[in-house]
Amino acid sequence: MGMLEFDGQRYLDGRASDPRKLGWMCGAPPPADKRINREGDNFLEFPQRRWSLSHMREFLATVNVSRGEARPSPLDRSEKAADIDAITFVQPNERSRRFDEALFDTYTDGIVVLHRGRIVYERYFGALQPHLPHSCQSVTKSYAGTLAAAFVHEGVLDEGKVISYYLPELRGTAWEDATLRQVMDMQTGLAYTGDYTDEHSGVRAFGRAVGYRWRPPGYVGPQTLCDYLRTIRKEGAHGERFSYKCVDTEVMAWVMARATGRSFAQLLHERLWAPLGCEENAYIVVDSGGMPMVCGGLSSTLRDLARFGELMRREGEWNGKQLIPASVVYEVQKGVESEKCPNVPQPGCSYRSQWWVTHNELGALEARGMYGQRLYVAPRAEMVVARFASHPLLTNAGNDSITVPQMLALGRMLRA
Amino acid sequence: MGMLEFDGQRYLDGRASDPRKLGWMCGAPPPADKRINREGDNFLEFPQRRWSLSHMREFLATVNVSRGEARPSPLDRSEKAADIDAITFVQPNERSRRFDEALFDTYTDGIVVLHRGRIVYERYFGALQPHLPHSCQSVTKSYAGTLAAAFVHEGVLDEGKVISYYLPELRGTAWEDATLRQVMDMQTGLAYTGDYTDEHSGVRAFGRAVGYRWRPPGYVGPQTLCDYLRTIRKEGAHGERFSYKCVDTEVMAWVMARATGRSFAQLLHERLWAPLGCEENAYIVVDSGGMPMVCGGLSSTLRDLARFGELMRREGEWNGKQLIPASVVYEVQKGVESEKCPNVPQPGCSYRSQWWVTHNELGALEARGMYGQRLYVAPRAEMVVARFASHPLLTNAGNDSITVPQMLALGRMLRA
Repeated sequence: MGMLEFDGQRYLDGRASDPRKLGWMCGAPPPADKRINREGDNFLEFPQRRWSLSHMREFLATVNVSRGEARPSPLDRSEKAADIDAITFVQPNERSRRFDEALFDTYTDGIVVLHRGRIVYERYFGALQPHLPHSCQSVTKSYAGTLAAAFVHEGVLDEGKVISYYLPELRGTAWEDATLRQVMDMQTGLAYTGDYTDEHSGVRAFGRAVGYRWRPPGYVGPQTLCDYLRTIRKEGAHGERFSYKCVDTEVMAWVMARATGRSFAQLLHERLWAPLGCEENAYIVVDSGGMPMVCGGLSSTLRDLARFGELMRREGEWNGKQLIPASVVYEVQKGVESEKCPNVPQPGCSYRSQWWVTHNELGALEARGMYGQRLYVAPRAEMVVARFASHPLLTNAGNDSITVPQMLALGRMLRA
Repeated sequence: MGMLEFDGQRYLDGRASDPRKLGWMCGAPPPADKRINREGDNFLEFPQRRWSLSHMREFLATVNVSRGEARPSPLDRSEKAADIDAITFVQPNERSRRFDEALFDTYTDGIVVLHRGRIVYERYFGALQPHLPHSCQSVTKSYAGTLAAAFVHEGVLDEGKVISYYLPELRGTAWEDATLRQVMDMQTGLAYTGDYTDEHSGVRAFGRAVGYRWRPPGYVGPQTLCDYLRTIRKEGAHGERFSYKCVDTEVMAWVMARATGRSFAQLLHERLWAPLGCEENAYIVVDSGGMPMVCGGLSSTLRDLARFGELMRREGEWNGKQLIPASVVYEVQKGVESEKCPNVPQPGCSYRSQWWVTHNELGALEARGMYGQRLYVAPRAEMVVARFASHPLLTNAGNDSITVPQMLALGRMLRA
């Protein structure tokens, strides 16, 4: 059986952990050792997550993001599969890999590559299918940041206002005197820890409050997302430096919902899913008060994710309509002064309006999510890559050493 | 404020309980007194359910029933709204009502009437919208019974075989020696009580095992649907008389899943949702083992429910294809000897393959679900009525005295 080692632990490799081979959730009912359930967050474990990330709503309460009634917008094809499969690239450790093999090594569930708006490459593995929404994890944040930036541009929101202006109920919390822009760029000072592997961290407590994470019997913590946000106090200063925090996204989304009178699911429908001509309804995890988990609760099909990337590549224009102001995209592209972003996954990158800005030779923006979710928008290669994955490691640290050179090599090849 | 009395209790009437007026789940987050949640089955209470029945997956784990990729089949229109609104009918208590007023009196969320396959009447109220799936409750059973009867006709299932032939794990339970046909027609003798209002009844214990009903803290009962079914013992004889029991539907559906190797959601997709050209994906509640709640877990749009009714009216034929064998429909039409069906909601009706057979002048079949869900297929009037509702009373007893003469009057008018 193929195995790979990460951080000193051994895991089934990409082929051996294929959920179809492992038989997860097969049978009526599935036998006990093939069953995946919520208890103890079993569904989020590896290799169970190779199945679960394509089936999130079978575990969680969710609300639809409707695509509306129009026909899907066509994504034309100019297949370059053989050429792309054969791309070879070199990792920082000087190991060289082929593109097609790297898909297994990154536990890819699906990947679609657009070049000049046409599908040049598309693959599905394991549990994922073209019509099936897959968890976007924190890629959700980039959808939300884009909408928030659009509302700022349109004057619906004022990025210079403090959060308590929009949400009086956050007076006395960390966000009382944080500006909306600071929150959008995650430049806040919070008494909050973001370590996903620590049961006692803020982000895990947040997950339990939302109901995304399992609540142990006797749980007495906050019952909703908003209740949890009210418990966070200030630590340090706002506006000094970027630090990655789910709760900032939730506060930003809460401001949007309050100011527009519309839920995030409605906003995604009106501003993106319907006008983009998405193929399938998406969905988003909701808490027990019906509030969506905007930091990572969205599930979308791969192609619909690629459509969003293509919208960003086209600077907000789609079939002659400006869905997102072009200046929103320009501003994201500019990023943030690098000295404000010391803790970033790639040297030189920055975080702006919930996007990772690479400042690399392809001018690439990235939306990144746990377990390897990635939307890579590379204007200088006229390329968009949407990838879903279910990596054994939570963070992208496990696949960045492959994904970063892989995307660069792909972009260089298409640009050539 | 308009009030109505049922069983000695007063409730907001159809207009006053409109969830938009009551503001349920409005706000970000909704204020505490406008919030609906799962705890203690709050979402199933009245008037909360006027909102919840159009939003079931925002509370529960669900799996999609995919419509596939084809364009929806058109439902042409020949509006007769004014004529139908003005229909007047007389109830058993000699009270006379207008059709349009009766919609409020039955807490209707939506109603669509097809005549010769064309929409002649369509209305939505409260939380329901054309694209939004609404809980079908036990109307789900009739979908399942139709598929099971089709598999019997096709030789995939043998209705004379005992359940333990298909499901060895039910040896030692009530169903060990019940035939599939007895289960399909609910002519089994079980130590099981079906009183929805009694916390300690079988059907409530079943609901907690599935995870549809709230599990109180410290719950130690069965964790899945199948685990619960294994606890049911025989009481009395099989094949003697009809008695309405959710668990028979679950056993029938389990047999179908085992014999076909496909989940109920897949079967609905392949046999009905895709070939009927349904407009929207449906969804179904699943338990913690991924098994669908076939006795009442389906949510569908109103028009897609009407399409299923129209398929039954056309004796299984749809655009030149026989989706369901015509003999399945004929056999349901025949019903069951009335002496075997002493406990039925309407005198003279019987229960066959999970359909209510009225044996009335319109030759009507009915699929019926809690709180007023109804699919009424009246071949002699070339009429199909799909209605969703959220009545204060669990059973249809609260609305039958209106609905039965209302459907008859409508059928007579269209037939004329």
